[in-house]
Amino acid sequence: MLDQNPPAQLPANPNVAIVGSTGAVGVELLNTLAARGFPLANLKLLASARSAGKEVSFNGGTLIVEELSENSFDDVHVAFFSAGATLSRKFAPIAVAAGALVVDNSSAFRMDPDVPLVVPEANAAAMSGHAGVVANPNCVAAIATVALAPLHKAFNIQRLNLATYQAASGAGAAAMEELRQGTQAYLNGDDFQPEVLPHPYAFNFFSHNADIEDNGYNGEENKVIAEVRRIMERPALPIGVTCIRVPILRAHGMAISIEFDQPVSPEQARALLQDAPGVKLVDDREANYFPMPVDASGQEDVLVGRIREDLGDPSGRSLSIFVVGDQLLKGAALNAVQIAEQFLPA
Amino acid sequence: MLDQNPPAQLPANPNVAIVGSTGAVGVELLNTLAARGFPLANLKLLASARSAGKEVSFNGGTLIVEELSENSFDDVHVAFFSAGATLSRKFAPIAVAAGALVVDNSSAFRMDPDVPLVVPEANAAAMSGHAGVVANPNCVAAIATVALAPLHKAFNIQRLNLATYQAASGAGAAAMEELRQGTQAYLNGDDFQPEVLPHPYAFNFFSHNADIEDNGYNGEENKVIAEVRRIMERPALPIGVTCIRVPILRAHGMAISIEFDQPVSPEQARALLQDAPGVKLVDDREANYFPMPVDASGQEDVLVGRIREDLGDPSGRSLSIFVVGDQLLKGAALNAVQIAEQFLPA
Repeated sequence: MLDQNPPAQLPANPNVAIVGSTGAVGVELLNTLAARGFPLANLKLLASARSAGKEVSFNGGTLIVEELSENSFDDVHVAFFSAGATLSRKFAPIAVAAGALVVDNSSAFRMDPDVPLVVPEANAAAMSGHAGVVANPNCVAAIATVALAPLHKAFNIQRLNLATYQAASGAGAAAMEELRQGTQAYLNGDDFQPEVLPHPYAFNFFSHNADIEDNGYNGEENKVIAEVRRIMERPALPIGVTCIRVPILRAHGMAISIEFDQPVSPEQARALLQDAPGVKLVDDREANYFPMPVDASGQEDVLVGRIREDLGDPSGRSLSIFVVGDQLLKGAALNAVQIAEQFLPA
Repeated sequence: MLDQNPPAQLPANPNVAIVGSTGAVGVELLNTLAARGFPLANLKLLASARSAGKEVSFNGGTLIVEELSENSFDDVHVAFFSAGATLSRKFAPIAVAAGALVVDNSSAFRMDPDVPLVVPEANAAAMSGHAGVVANPNCVAAIATVALAPLHKAFNIQRLNLATYQAASGAGAAAMEELRQGTQAYLNGDDFQPEVLPHPYAFNFFSHNADIEDNGYNGEENKVIAEVRRIMERPALPIGVTCIRVPILRAHGMAISIEFDQPVSPEQARALLQDAPGVKLVDDREANYFPMPVDASGQEDVLVGRIREDLGDPSGRSLSIFVVGDQLLKGAALNAVQIAEQFLPA
């Protein structure tokens, strides 16, 4: 499918396109490009006919959303796709054929062996084998691997167990608004019928609503397993995971137990994480201060704390950590922009 | 300390006292005694001088809170203590000396070898050794062991890992109100300074605020470890646990991974839990319907679902489950009343 070899490097000032710029992730793509000073020459916003003509603010100016078509990518150097797997499957090959590098935020290509699945802090080297498309991982996989990669590189990870605390933003801007509105209705004592998510969200949590698959895990959990394995280059790593949506707006948390192939002390892990890219250590036992959504939201760094022995493993080879990251940033938009940045001239 | 041997059985219509009847658990003790038709002859509400004189509704009538004193228990057959460990340490021995059975909801006696720590569904037999006081467990330990006991009795549990999703009610009625008020302030865009809990609670979660102890676990987590071991009569069971407060009003959730000493299938576990006392199976993969606080709140049963192989353990000896229970009921008041019911004549 992706048989054309696009340039290994972007020009110093590339033309950028965003497919799906009005969703929760699209808005953060614009914010992140602006905040990081991505050296774009021109920015084109693309969407279905329904959204074409919408005005979007960017860097103090206003851009008009154009209708996505087969000719949209003719002058584009890098295209960010954030409009669902169906659209990515159709238009990513068209963009690549036109010479663009595609950074795809959907699940369309994440398990395609020809498409690197990349968290730059964890496996930037995997990008060298790309054939035009680089896939941006599931939000839980991206946030988890920022914290896990430095540990895995120093001490081989043998087994993982994750329980997640996932925010509304993973289901899009409409779910965030439903959480706000449903909560206000609850506080007012009013009835409220959820429409975006299948369960009441006000002061409630629920098992992630992705369909349950044959192994008893839901689609989100199976993505986490498959993608963490791929990013960490451990195709058979045993991973157990429970994905729960909690009433939080935009930061995901996860309690992770990690078994290594050798004893690792909390101090060794803390020293590695202290210097790890993309990680901010928030691990103040004295002050009882650890990673929280209020601190992670709007932050590029993934917060890591509660680093301690996993007392469920008497061998001394296991640690437990608690990780919180902004779902829209490191879980989506920021990671996508960081991927594109790897292709800019040094 | 507890050297007097109180009657092994209560009279058919015992006189009941509640120490601490105006807190979140106290209110649910009253509700639970009424809802279950506990055959009390007389009900006495006891509190510090500060709360004495308050009026409390019970079963359509009104009771006046009396000031707790050394003479409060002279005619009492069973006393529920729910006013903190300090008060329990002082007054439980006085109540026992006066001939009362004490059911203590504080942490004062939970690890005292002379005091049974009881979840009736799990270890009712342990009560036979009591010397006047029976301890009511920590809420997480109580809810978890309702689900774990039937599995443990059939297939020996070798290792546990829990990640909790804990409600405001665990920190009392004031924390529940702070969650409501803080959330309303957030939605209004107003500043809000938390006073009961150390962190913002609106659309936020945080590591349980009990002090971190020498092993890197907080006091809540160490209670869960010690109490689950005691209730399951496995004093050295390896247990890893992460306790997180989520913005929920009154139901605790927990993702639990369980390693057995032999392979156990999800079907075997489901069959056992289907018939287990105090458990309601909520495990509909087709409808993607699993335990949630909105369903568990106000319910006596502990909801159990997401029963599946723990893919983090390639041996096939591990299962993962998701459990939600009402923190004020099975996590506190209901379990206390159930303990007292065991002493009523058949």
